Amino acid sequence: MVIVMKDSASETMVDAVSEKLEKYGFKVHKVVGVNRTILGGLGDIRNLDIREFEIMEGVLEVLRITEPYKLASRAFHPDNTIVEIKEASFGSDVVTVCAGPCSVESEEQLYTIAREVKKAGAKVLRGGAFKPRTSPYAFQGLGERGLQLMQQVGEEMKIATVSEIMEIAQLDLMVQYIDIIQVGARNMQNFSLLRELGSVKKPILLKRGLAATIEELLMAAEYIMSGGNYEIILCERGIRTFENYTRNTLDISAIPVTQKRSHLPIIADPSHGTGRRDKVAPMARAAVAAGANGLIIEVHHDPDHALSDGAQSIYPHQFQRLMEELRMIAWAIGKRI
Amino acid sequence: MVIVMKDSASETMVDAVSEKLEKYGFKVHKVVGVNRTILGGLGDIRNLDIREFEIMEGVLEVLRITEPYKLASRAFHPDNTIVEIKEASFGSDVVTVCAGPCSVESEEQLYTIAREVKKAGAKVLRGGAFKPRTSPYAFQGLGERGLQLMQQVGEEMKIATVSEIMEIAQLDLMVQYIDIIQVGARNMQNFSLLRELGSVKKPILLKRGLAATIEELLMAAEYIMSGGNYEIILCERGIRTFENYTRNTLDISAIPVTQKRSHLPIIADPSHGTGRRDKVAPMARAAVAAGANGLIIEVHHDPDHALSDGAQSIYPHQFQRLMEELRMIAWAIGKRI
Amino acid sequence: MVIVMKDSASETMVDAVSEKLEKYGFKVHKVVGVNRTILGGLGDIRNLDIREFEIMEGVLEVLRITEPYKLASRAFHPDNTIVEIKEASFGSDVVTVCAGPCSVESEEQLYTIAREVKKAGAKVLRGGAFKPRTSPYAFQGLGERGLQLMQQVGEEMKIATVSEIMEIAQLDLMVQYIDIIQVGARNMQNFSLLRELGSVKKPILLKRGLAATIEELLMAAEYIMSGGNYEIILCERGIRTFENYTRNTLDISAIPVTQKRSHLPIIADPSHGTGRRDKVAPMARAAVAAGANGLIIEVHHDPDHALSDGAQSIYPHQFQRLMEELRMIAWAIGKRI
Amino acid sequence: MVIVMKDSASETMVDAVSEKLEKYGFKVHKVVGVNRTILGGLGDIRNLDIREFEIMEGVLEVLRITEPYKLASRAFHPDNTIVEIKEASFGSDVVTVCAGPCSVESEEQLYTIAREVKKAGAKVLRGGAFKPRTSPYAFQGLGERGLQLMQQVGEEMKIATVSEIMEIAQLDLMVQYIDIIQVGARNMQNFSLLRELGSVKKPILLKRGLAATIEELLMAAEYIMSGGNYEIILCERGIRTFENYTRNTLDISAIPVTQKRSHLPIIADPSHGTGRRDKVAPMARAAVAAGANGLIIEVHHDPDHALSDGAQSIYPHQFQRLMEELRMIAWAIGKRI
Repeated sequence: MVIVMKDSASETMVDAVSEKLEKYGFKVHKVVGVNRTILGGLGDIRNLDIREFEIMEGVLEVLRITEPYKLASRAFHPDNTIVEIKEASFGSDVVTVCAGPCSVESEEQLYTIAREVKKAGAKVLRGGAFKPRTSPYAFQGLGERGLQLMQQVGEEMKIATVSEIMEIAQLDLMVQYIDIIQVGARNMQNFSLLRELGSVKKPILLKRGLAATIEELLMAAEYIMSGGNYEIILCERGIRTFENYTRNTLDISAIPVTQKRSHLPIIADPSHGTGRRDKVAPMARAAVAAGANGLIIEVHHDPDHALSDGAQSIYPHQFQRLMEELRMIAWAIGKRI
Repeated sequence: MVIVMKDSASETMVDAVSEKLEKYGFKVHKVVGVNRTILGGLGDIRNLDIREFEIMEGVLEVLRITEPYKLASRAFHPDNTIVEIKEASFGSDVVTVCAGPCSVESEEQLYTIAREVKKAGAKVLRGGAFKPRTSPYAFQGLGERGLQLMQQVGEEMKIATVSEIMEIAQLDLMVQYIDIIQVGARNMQNFSLLRELGSVKKPILLKRGLAATIEELLMAAEYIMSGGNYEIILCERGIRTFENYTRNTLDISAIPVTQKRSHLPIIADPSHGTGRRDKVAPMARAAVAAGANGLIIEVHHDPDHALSDGAQSIYPHQFQRLMEELRMIAWAIGKRI
Repeated sequence: MVIVMKDSASETMVDAVSEKLEKYGFKVHKVVGVNRTILGGLGDIRNLDIREFEIMEGVLEVLRITEPYKLASRAFHPDNTIVEIKEASFGSDVVTVCAGPCSVESEEQLYTIAREVKKAGAKVLRGGAFKPRTSPYAFQGLGERGLQLMQQVGEEMKIATVSEIMEIAQLDLMVQYIDIIQVGARNMQNFSLLRELGSVKKPILLKRGLAATIEELLMAAEYIMSGGNYEIILCERGIRTFENYTRNTLDISAIPVTQKRSHLPIIADPSHGTGRRDKVAPMARAAVAAGANGLIIEVHHDPDHALSDGAQSIYPHQFQRLMEELRMIAWAIGKRI
Repeated sequence: MVIVMKDSASETMVDAVSEKLEKYGFKVHKVVGVNRTILGGLGDIRNLDIREFEIMEGVLEVLRITEPYKLASRAFHPDNTIVEIKEASFGSDVVTVCAGPCSVESEEQLYTIAREVKKAGAKVLRGGAFKPRTSPYAFQGLGERGLQLMQQVGEEMKIATVSEIMEIAQLDLMVQYIDIIQVGARNMQNFSLLRELGSVKKPILLKRGLAATIEELLMAAEYIMSGGNYEIILCERGIRTFENYTRNTLDISAIPVTQKRSHLPIIADPSHGTGRRDKVAPMARAAVAAGANGLIIEVHHDPDHALSDGAQSIYPHQFQRLMEELRMIAWAIGKRI
């Protein structure tokens, strides 16, 4: 941490800051310039609210020099973390695609779609059983029955499964039935839930919140990791901006930025990130071209009758064609699907 | 709902849209213009994903003409809802101020601060027992002991209390000890939690998420109301923007905008909305001048040693002076504190 | 400037950074910690692109410790700058209100409105002659004739005038006819124009761009000041956010933040900041309550027939009532109108 | 335009709105529902401020049903516009890359870089002669000498050139020396400048403003087109969001969205869009994968000594490798470079 004193700061003010730094266990270095004094504090700031220093008398600015996360940072773990489950692998030179319906609606629906996406090359089957709906009047998911179907199809077809958890009370069910537990964007800072997931022995797919900075996404990962669960797959799914022609703005640059800061794999969700079927393919391609470790895509054989998010689900034949394009793009940058 | 067809849309396409509208129970009106056809659908769209129509062939644009919320809308309930608890009242011509420490730290701390804020005119005592901290390494609150202290001080001093709930499992404790249950910004779309709060017989203080639109805030209120709990106090606490000189941007205009759309009272949180002690007073005054039904402010007698958010807590003497300014401002616009 | 080296940085890398710092005229202080090395560079960074250091090998982070502006900063000029023109004063304990029509439309219109706003207490008459319209098909203003009318009314009624300049070619006309030259939000970073205004002997009303940070607003002021014109009035007029229920989000917190960073006066524009007549009064009151040095408000006696922005213009009787409320609010915080 | 009346609107209020619509030349259709009345107005709304209707008594909501731009819309011109100049072509199935230094610094520098980028496959040479710098103390460009060098190199190497105009006074020089005239992000709504460019016989490269919606970008294009110049290349170059780890957020989704709304070609600027050398390649690949009609990239053989934006310039060998990757990506989606 670096604390810059005002030109007008008295020696007493400088000393007060210096003492407070020492009180927190920092080793203090004082640099006295012609006009102003700068204090460098070496130590662990993860537990500290830097605003405590900002409001001290004579302080001009306080600059943090380390990230507030540690376990999630690349400095701590220089090599990529590779999360593996069944035939899926996130973080290596393979681009892994998760696909499936938004919601599990019936046994027939799930089998139909699962067959299609597996054939086209998906390595993980997605499907929601508990649905976070903005409207209290909308379809809320099949619940446990949906999870059972996911497990049944997953085992039969030898494909890993991912489904979203909405509250701590669902954790036992998730662990029993599902391979990868998804934390949705709206729960990214549900700290109670994150803490519980820290003691689970399953990979977590952690989605970035709509207004979360990349730093906060990594802090959320840190929450889980601090509990002992290191198997985390990050997911960019669109942020809020002023643009109205799209629902959200899928932040493609978050992919290379996160990969530089952290060793955790990051995938993209072009379905929620755009909200529109005709934008899914271009943004899926963009994410892979930018270096994403994978994708999660909503596919439905009859989206007009889907019980949720039909408008952003692509048809199986569109998915198949997209996978072919993605294969070439992956190859162009030295990866493979 | 209004659906505008493309200039090039064929009659078959228009008919398909018309039939789909009818299938959903809409009464359809067709307006055939020189260049294009417009379909008006009268009916309940709350249960509908309008994107289903947007992706139909021949459709140029789909326009919603009613809000997706109903119970929370002013159209449904033209008069202000007034939430009353002990001596506090939200929604009338009284501006009600909640104040207290960020976290309950000890019996002595809570008594000291409660005495000061009550003397200065606060009608509700705030104090956190479960703390949602961005860092897993930070102080997490006293838990049930904190709630007990809140109840004890509240009863002794005859002041209502508000404290934040973080997960469903804490609900029984909250109901037992606390007068107003606060839902934090990060839980505004924790739909499982909202649903549970619908069946509680206590007022809910619902904070706007950092990236939530006002419509989403009202939808979150609708979630609770659809369960039967109509006693909701909304709270503006700052949104994410590109500006870096402030933590968040307290959206003062949300106050008159929400009051026009909804009958629910809305208060402002200048402490979290700015994150800096020296900005709390100007923004508190601004919120009241804009017509806020109340405020929630962090006060601490010794913020340098506060266990959380000391930097945004004001001193009791600052709070007292602020209350005097607020009284005059309230009076200037025909209200009182 | 402070440069934090990576844990893995070699001595050669540290030396390279150190030499580059010295090359730019910085005095270098090296702090060697247990894990990492930090370099402090004391000197003038205003002319520097700090990214040049960020991309050097071994560098973890580069932190600026001084603002990139100087003349506009409060550190350079601790006392408030007071801009005075005729009976108007910006920056003292007086809250100065500018009011008038969006566009000058006719002699009669301008006289009518000017009389009303002057009577109610406005000290500056606003009125556009050159209009920046988003649509090329909209009314573009009366041009020089509009400026002449502004001058005529201003002199007759002894009221200062403000009008917007759109391009350098209009500068001579502006200087000839108008007291305060306004730079609109869309021109805030029209550096050619700013440069020209640096040599003008008239106060400049500089509006913050829709996506401009406060730092960029102050840099734009610095552009003008570096040319020798120190009479600048800043103006907050709303920023772009994700919220759709309002056109823009009037950033009230920009007022206290700017006043801390800079000695220049700052006013607010609730008309453009909200875009809706019924939101003008609450936001005007909020701005004054937060400490604004003034306001600029659109008033029209017949807004239904206004040639531009009728929807955000308030009626004279609304303006008069607002001024009464503002007087009390100003008084509540130790100011006056 | 569709106007939805409140449930409580009287017949007189409905009639007033209806008459106002007719006054503006709209043909009015009235749909009377059980609860509310809806008025459909068929006519040209390009010249209209819809807020005029929003503030009428009894009006609940006003919905625009056509875009405010016409010449720029795909509805008006269903086929892609193809802008051709020398060997460059924007809008066909060719992906066209513009590359070169941020600023022209010297004859030698320009020749060196031009040779490299041409060899690697660039079809347009970029190079700034007038530089819009945020700081008044920074390098401002070579001026006319820079333009002369661009022309000389362009002719000798048979490569088209693009350079930025900053003010109307530079227009004659630009026309004389340069093939494609660039309008920078900060001038996207410099309406005086746009108007002048409408009568120029050169293609315009129009950059999206940092906070401009896609609609506003298309309105800016409409300004130029309404003057008679239809040769416009749009450019996405990053928008402002709350994320701090990147300078701007390059909005890749703007590419497919704009291509659906408009017939004009759109390219991406990953150099300004990210501000960091190591992010240029991933984002360039993403833009092409999403369907961009081209790119504009800053290349410098000695970025450490570049007079501007060295930190975001890539080396010639990086550019060459990037072009190879882009060729494969283009090919994957049925395009070519």
